[in-house]
This record gives sequence, structure tokens and C-alpha cells, in this order.
Amino acid sequence: MALKIDIISANINILESNLKHGLISRAIKEKLIEVKVYDLRNYADGNYKQIDDTPYGGGAGMVLKPEPFFKCISELIKKTDYDEIIYFSPQGYLFNQSVANNYSLKNNILILAGHYKGIDQRVIDKFVTKEISIGEYVLSCGDIAALVFTDAISRLIPGVLNDAQSALSDSFQNEEIFDAPVYTKPENYEGLNVPEILLSGNHKLISEWRMEKGHQNYKEYISKNKKL
Amino acid sequence: MALKIDIISANINILESNLKHGLISRAIKEKLIEVKVYDLRNYADGNYKQIDDTPYGGGAGMVLKPEPFFKCISELIKKTDYDEIIYFSPQGYLFNQSVANNYSLKNNILILAGHYKGIDQRVIDKFVTKEISIGEYVLSCGDIAALVFTDAISRLIPGVLNDAQSALSDSFQNEEIFDAPVYTKPENYEGLNVPEILLSGNHKLISEWRMEKGHQNYKEYISKNKKL
Repeated sequence: MALKIDIISANINILESNLKHGLISRAIKEKLIEVKVYDLRNYADGNYKQIDDTPYGGGAGMVLKPEPFFKCISELIKKTDYDEIIYFSPQGYLFNQSVANNYSLKNNILILAGHYKGIDQRVIDKFVTKEISIGEYVLSCGDIAALVFTDAISRLIPGVLNDAQSALSDSFQNEEIFDAPVYTKPENYEGLNVPEILLSGNHKLISEWRMEKGHQNYKEYISKNKKL
Repeated sequence: MALKIDIISANINILESNLKHGLISRAIKEKLIEVKVYDLRNYADGNYKQIDDTPYGGGAGMVLKPEPFFKCISELIKKTDYDEIIYFSPQGYLFNQSVANNYSLKNNILILAGHYKGIDQRVIDKFVTKEISIGEYVLSCGDIAALVFTDAISRLIPGVLNDAQSALSDSFQNEEIFDAPVYTKPENYEGLNVPEILLSGNHKLISEWRMEKGHQNYKEYISKNKKL
């Protein structure tokens, strides 16, 4: 069964072109993954279909109201048994490649994509099973985080990339070896040459060179960021 | 002068809907930021406009060729003096809110958006002034990283958010205080109440409550991720 990702969004247009043109689009076409975006506005009441309102206690920004989420989620969980209901927040677990690996093995994921200044906390308290952070920065909406999350996971599903081996050789898959530099034709361009070893045809030496360069890239990352 | 971000992309459709519908679109309309996407294919030679080829030394994935990048970048740097030419890679500096603050003060940024399995290293060696990683995971293309980067930066530019104060109170802006939970109407929903203090009208107490909750969220993040 293909992985199914449902996304409840307050601005469904943001994800649109990526789902149509990105890697995910290929995965969707080949039924390796199913991504469905639910428009929060369709679950709002009244003529104005209001989905947000000012925060209690004052302050900047609008807060997404509880009712549309409660209504939408209640309908969805009747039909699908989600492995996880995810909300992206700064205080979430930091997303990384091993978390991505883990999620690529799930069956059903529901993502609540909020926007500034967030969603009513009662929605999170009631339904969310995992808060995730894609990085130590703030975005204008959860849809962009949902896109990062969905892309990183989709490409790990067997068949989505042309070569199943390629995701396994990714950076972050092996703790101490990142991708090595890559080169393609022409061999010489503007006086700049492809490293000779890559032209040698000696697969053992090429593999060793890549391991070494990949480890150098890993060390460079560590020295820059002093953590991992 | 507005911040100008130029993006060279191998799949311009991916960014399209976000630039049209996201927060960035508002910032662009109000001339607070300028984002231009250059189609790598327009700088490719021949009838087939080939932009990628197989990697030297063998292996999975296609590598973006040097010539289209050299051509496009050479043209762009004649017209614009970029503060930084950025490539997103696993071994880059980890993007975070203080890096975002820093970039929101720049004038001109050029982003090279690669796709799997990357771009010819000669392009990076020759032109790139900063490699950046948006997180410890692998994405199918640099366009998604460019989107995250552009969104996180745009919202920090004065005038882009409705209330200039709101970005300053963001999580990650203050090392030890994240955003507090938010609530909006209705006061009671499905038996769940808004915390009474937020209805008190006492701004001093509300502010203290938010500081305390924000600090709790910060501590939750630290305990989950054991770094920052």
C-alpha cells in the first residue's frame, strides 16, 4: 500500500505547483505515494468562511480558529487510521534524515499546516500526536514545512528515484560520509578539469576517492556547525 | 532599496505557485522584495537544451552541466553585484534564524538551485560564495530549499508582515523564549476553554504567562533535541 499523506491547509495554492511539477508529482502519478490537500476554508461556517481571528490576550498576527480543524479532522479520522498527526512548530522534534527514513515506512500521515501566528492550541492538544521542526527558523506557513517533509520522505520510497541505490548513498544516511563532489561533461571547461581519477575507469579507486571526499564534506559540515 | 533575490532553477515550475500565492507574493507586490527566477534551460546549447548528463566515474543520478550555469551566472554578475552566491548542500552552514536576520539586511542574493544528484563541482568552486544547509535531510531539489530560505528572510523585512513587532517576538529570535500557545474565539469549544488569564485583560499577567509558556516551549525543544 502506498504511503498516504493528507494535508489540511489554510492556503492550498502554495503546495499546488510542487505537487504538480516536483518529484512528488512523479511519485503520485506512479501511485507510490498519495497526497491530498484539504482546504480548511471548506470546513468553516457562515457566509464569510472565516478561518482565523485575533488572539485572546492581544498581540500581533491572526490565529486559525478551532472549529474548521475540529470538523475536518473529525471527518478524516473516521475514514483513516493515521499513524501520526503532525503539526510543525519550533518546539517540535528536529526533522532529519533518520526521521525521514522512519516516516517513509508509515502508511497514513495527517499534517496540519498552520499559518502565522499559528493555530488555536486546543486543536494541537486534542489531535496532534507529533510536533516537528524542520529547522531553527520561522516560516510564514506550515505548508512550506509540509512540502519539505513530504519531499524528503517521498524520495525515500522505493521506486520514486530512478535508482533505488541513490537514496541509500545520500548525505546524512551514513553518519560520517556525505556525498562527494560530482562532475559531468565536458571533461575540460574554461580551463577547469574533471579530477583525473574519475576518468580512470578504476572503480575501486573512484569509490575510495568518493569516500574520502565525502568524509571531508562531513568534516567540513561538523567544523562549520559543531553539532550533528 | 528592496532586497533582490535571483534564483537559477532547473525546474522553474516548482517555485511558481509559492511566488504567486505565498507571503512572498505580497512582499513582491509591495516592492519590499524582488524575486526573479532564471530558467537554466534558456542558457543551454543545442536543439535539446540539455542541462544535465551522467556523472563521471559512474553512479546514480544526473548531474547539472557546467556550461548553462557559467553562461547564466556570467551574464547576471555583469549586471548585479551580489552580496552572496548561494548553493544549498548538506555540508553548508546550517541555516537558522540569526542567519536569516543577517540575510534580510543584504541587497542582492543569487541562489543556484540544483537538483538530484547535484551540479558540476566546477560551478560551485568558481562562483559560490556560501554553501548553506536548511537542515540535516536530503531534498529532491534546491528549489525547495530556496523557497524555505526566501520565505524565512522575506518575512523579516520591515513591512512584509502586517505588524513589524511580530517577527521580533518569533521563536528563535530570543534564545530562551519561544512562542507561547495561542488561542482565538470561541472562548469555549467542545468543552475546551481558553486559559482564563488570556481573558483577564491584565496585560502584565498575560505577558508574564506568555514568557513562562514560551520558555517552557524552549525547554521542551532543548530536551527533545539536546542542542541549539
